[in-house]
Amino acid sequence: MVYQKVLIAGKWRDPKNPSGHFNAVNPANRQTLPEVYPVSGEDEVYEAISAGKQAAVDMRRIPRKKFAQFLESFADKIEAHTDELVDIANLETALPKEPRLRNGELPRTTDQLRKAAKAAREMSWCRATIESDVNIRSMMGPLDGPVSVFGPNNFPFAFNSIAGGDFAAAIAAGNPVIAKANTGHPGTTLVFSRLAFEAVIETRLPSATVQLIYRTPPELGLKLVSHPYVGASAFTGSKSAGLKLKAAADKAGKTIYLEMSSINPVFILPGAIEERSDEIATELFGSCTLGTGQFCTNPGLIILQKCDLSKKFIKTLAETFDNNKPGILLSSKGLSSIEQAVETLKSAGAELIAGGKKVEDEGYMFANTLLHVNGKTFISNPHDLQTEAFGTASLFVVADDIQQMKEVASVVEGNLTGCIYSHTQGRDDKDYTILEPELRTKVGRLLNDKVPTGVAVVSSMNHGGPYPATGHPGFTAVGLPTSLVRFAALYCYDNVRPNRLPIELQDKNPTGSMWRMIDGEWTQKDV
Amino acid sequence: MVYQKVLIAGKWRDPKNPSGHFNAVNPANRQTLPEVYPVSGEDEVYEAISAGKQAAVDMRRIPRKKFAQFLESFADKIEAHTDELVDIANLETALPKEPRLRNGELPRTTDQLRKAAKAAREMSWCRATIESDVNIRSMMGPLDGPVSVFGPNNFPFAFNSIAGGDFAAAIAAGNPVIAKANTGHPGTTLVFSRLAFEAVIETRLPSATVQLIYRTPPELGLKLVSHPYVGASAFTGSKSAGLKLKAAADKAGKTIYLEMSSINPVFILPGAIEERSDEIATELFGSCTLGTGQFCTNPGLIILQKCDLSKKFIKTLAETFDNNKPGILLSSKGLSSIEQAVETLKSAGAELIAGGKKVEDEGYMFANTLLHVNGKTFISNPHDLQTEAFGTASLFVVADDIQQMKEVASVVEGNLTGCIYSHTQGRDDKDYTILEPELRTKVGRLLNDKVPTGVAVVSSMNHGGPYPATGHPGFTAVGLPTSLVRFAALYCYDNVRPNRLPIELQDKNPTGSMWRMIDGEWTQKDV
Repeated sequence: MVYQKVLIAGKWRDPKNPSGHFNAVNPANRQTLPEVYPVSGEDEVYEAISAGKQAAVDMRRIPRKKFAQFLESFADKIEAHTDELVDIANLETALPKEPRLRNGELPRTTDQLRKAAKAAREMSWCRATIESDVNIRSMMGPLDGPVSVFGPNNFPFAFNSIAGGDFAAAIAAGNPVIAKANTGHPGTTLVFSRLAFEAVIETRLPSATVQLIYRTPPELGLKLVSHPYVGASAFTGSKSAGLKLKAAADKAGKTIYLEMSSINPVFILPGAIEERSDEIATELFGSCTLGTGQFCTNPGLIILQKCDLSKKFIKTLAETFDNNKPGILLSSKGLSSIEQAVETLKSAGAELIAGGKKVEDEGYMFANTLLHVNGKTFISNPHDLQTEAFGTASLFVVADDIQQMKEVASVVEGNLTGCIYSHTQGRDDKDYTILEPELRTKVGRLLNDKVPTGVAVVSSMNHGGPYPATGHPGFTAVGLPTSLVRFAALYCYDNVRPNRLPIELQDKNPTGSMWRMIDGEWTQKDV
Repeated sequence: MVYQKVLIAGKWRDPKNPSGHFNAVNPANRQTLPEVYPVSGEDEVYEAISAGKQAAVDMRRIPRKKFAQFLESFADKIEAHTDELVDIANLETALPKEPRLRNGELPRTTDQLRKAAKAAREMSWCRATIESDVNIRSMMGPLDGPVSVFGPNNFPFAFNSIAGGDFAAAIAAGNPVIAKANTGHPGTTLVFSRLAFEAVIETRLPSATVQLIYRTPPELGLKLVSHPYVGASAFTGSKSAGLKLKAAADKAGKTIYLEMSSINPVFILPGAIEERSDEIATELFGSCTLGTGQFCTNPGLIILQKCDLSKKFIKTLAETFDNNKPGILLSSKGLSSIEQAVETLKSAGAELIAGGKKVEDEGYMFANTLLHVNGKTFISNPHDLQTEAFGTASLFVVADDIQQMKEVASVVEGNLTGCIYSHTQGRDDKDYTILEPELRTKVGRLLNDKVPTGVAVVSSMNHGGPYPATGHPGFTAVGLPTSLVRFAALYCYDNVRPNRLPIELQDKNPTGSMWRMIDGEWTQKDV
């Protein structure tokens, strides 16, 4: 059998003792694509880990600007291969070439790589802290082993294991990456890997700075994230897979950052419905159907208060859902998973008001789906009624009043985002103050009058949140340079001689403009 | 039976359905002290958790300066009760009243509380980050439940569950605390709790801001750290207890910060031995015997190269160890634990060169102990030879050369600290560059020419390190305000209306001097 090559220890090569193989499938027509990808076995994974470990050691000696050069060179190459990337990602994911892949996700991906490069160049991300009188200095610095990245299926570019946000952050912080391709788009990941490795060669980084495997048996994935030589891991995907990796990593004392399920509750207060229900319905429809609903920030739960206007609002949205053809889902597994989730919601007491079943089509398709349930039922069975239906499927919760809305918020699990729509002239302000304290600690990002999809890559972004949305509420997966600190450890230097300090902590500001906390003040000056 | 009272939900009261009781023991004479302390059962612990949860909700609405006032008031009360605290801590721990308790640990404790107060007042700790063009703002803010603190036996003041560093950081970050007293000094903890609760009343914080239990059955401790209402936990103590708590918290998706074992390797390069061996021996002896060796940063592993001068150095130190009477250990458990650890080291190939056995004395006493082993043996059995012997017991590793020293460093487990002594005029510089990269990532704090004991409470301190020294390499348990972020989550506000933002994120700088990152620049200005 002719396998696609893996990238291990600086070599593109045939897989060594693979433990199986797989093909990608075109979700638009369910056709199996011709390329055969290996499922890597132990020999391969352990070799990648060893090579990554050595690369981590070597990278500590390399000037930070080289990481920046690499990231920028990689971004340039991605742009130069836009057509190839857009074509293969479209084939493997059925995501529209335009505007989604070419005009949305690809520029976002190169923007992330360049922002990560800027962070590596500027160095301020590492929070250098100096107390000059006692000569104790500390900073966040790279880990002592490679970062293993498990990318999700829904963003073949922006969250790709070897080109996306986690990759960019891990490299910018000074770590090598072992990328585990998402099995939904191995070909896309292969193209990125080729370009990334070209950039590694050009910028003369250690050859194992980037490595690629496509898939492993599940047990071997657990061994990867818990291996003593691995610095940390990052996973974006389903809760069930994420929790298994978390358990393995936790047991070994290894850090793992997970972005798992989120249903992103949207609370709409009565004044907002009265003031601008059509506008909100249009916004919500757009947000719910974006990427066929397969966004981590998809609004899966919409809570409003019982009244005639709400009833009309729900009816309008249900009609819009019914009247629009659904998009294509990413995989057959995605199709059966949303089908099952909708059944769970129904069994838990939710009633269907739009869609609810598979659509017979060449591609994997599930009707745009809306369900509703009253507040009391939701509160009595919150776990099942928060089942994530990954796709265009949302559950309306109709509460009796603001107190019940608050109770709903109190049983909401940890989420990436939570939104509150309210009257622009203040008519909902009292309700807001009742609701907000309950919702605030349940979500990483709280929005006003705005849908949760669309995650700006800025320093103040939080694409994280309380468990089970993620594994730790203090970190974000999106937002540069903030996301870099996940892939770093705190290193303190106590009475270390000046010439032995890393440049970030020497008396002289290494760039002339790096921000450092010196004797309690953030400054760009020298010590 | 008359129990000492617990502090639950704002009331000093008799224990409810206790599941047992215990007494403290005076380690200086092995006498059981008269007071009887309850082992709390489920009812009590769950009631504390519920009350703590409500306090966490209430504390979100309280101006930050109130937390500062509380911490300062508490510090004042501690000073006013110095004699009482010193007497009871001495009785329960046998730590010397002077200088240790009165002149060292007590001022350090009040200093920590006041520095935490300063952090709460200044607000800069929360890393407020604002991107004004997109109106996305984020900060670290309090958790959604109480922090449970498990303090260690070796610092009855500075790491006390209800007065030490974790307590101060949790409160300053805006969280209530459920203190689980260390069972070695319940009376000391009770005095602190009384003073803390008086300060709570005076500054009108929610009455469950501080709560106290003394002990729980082990299973209930696991339930506490994994309870859905608990915000996070902090534990300082043995690896075996810490890992059990970690497993329970991890499984529930709860954050726990652990400070567990550390043997703090000290590498002494040949030039340093040649230059100033007596001076180093004196320093090391002081550091090894501080607090009868029961310091987290006690130098338990000393590595040097084989030569006549090293041999003499070891001999001198062994004589000093032998010629000095050991201090008193904290407990009978501590005594059997060091005895067992020394046996483990011997079985693994280490040879005794000083001490090595119990001393018949009124108090718990173990002879000042030194062992040695050659580099090759250490490298072949690194796990057993890194058994922590908590007390005055250190292991010399005699390496053949710098390469073998480096190999020793490569098998060292995660530690809080690592030291390298070298020639002051540069004669060891080449060896340093070989050794340092290997040691750097194994330890939280790297020192030059300085013993590891003595942990300055400054912003650049790292009293943390890679697993198994702690559970996460990115956080420190000492060093204000840095230690506060452990008890906080990242909260983002996206398009949230100005009057609904927390004061830290409003356009106007809330103090006029708070440091915030606005549009990529750290500044004290308004937006």
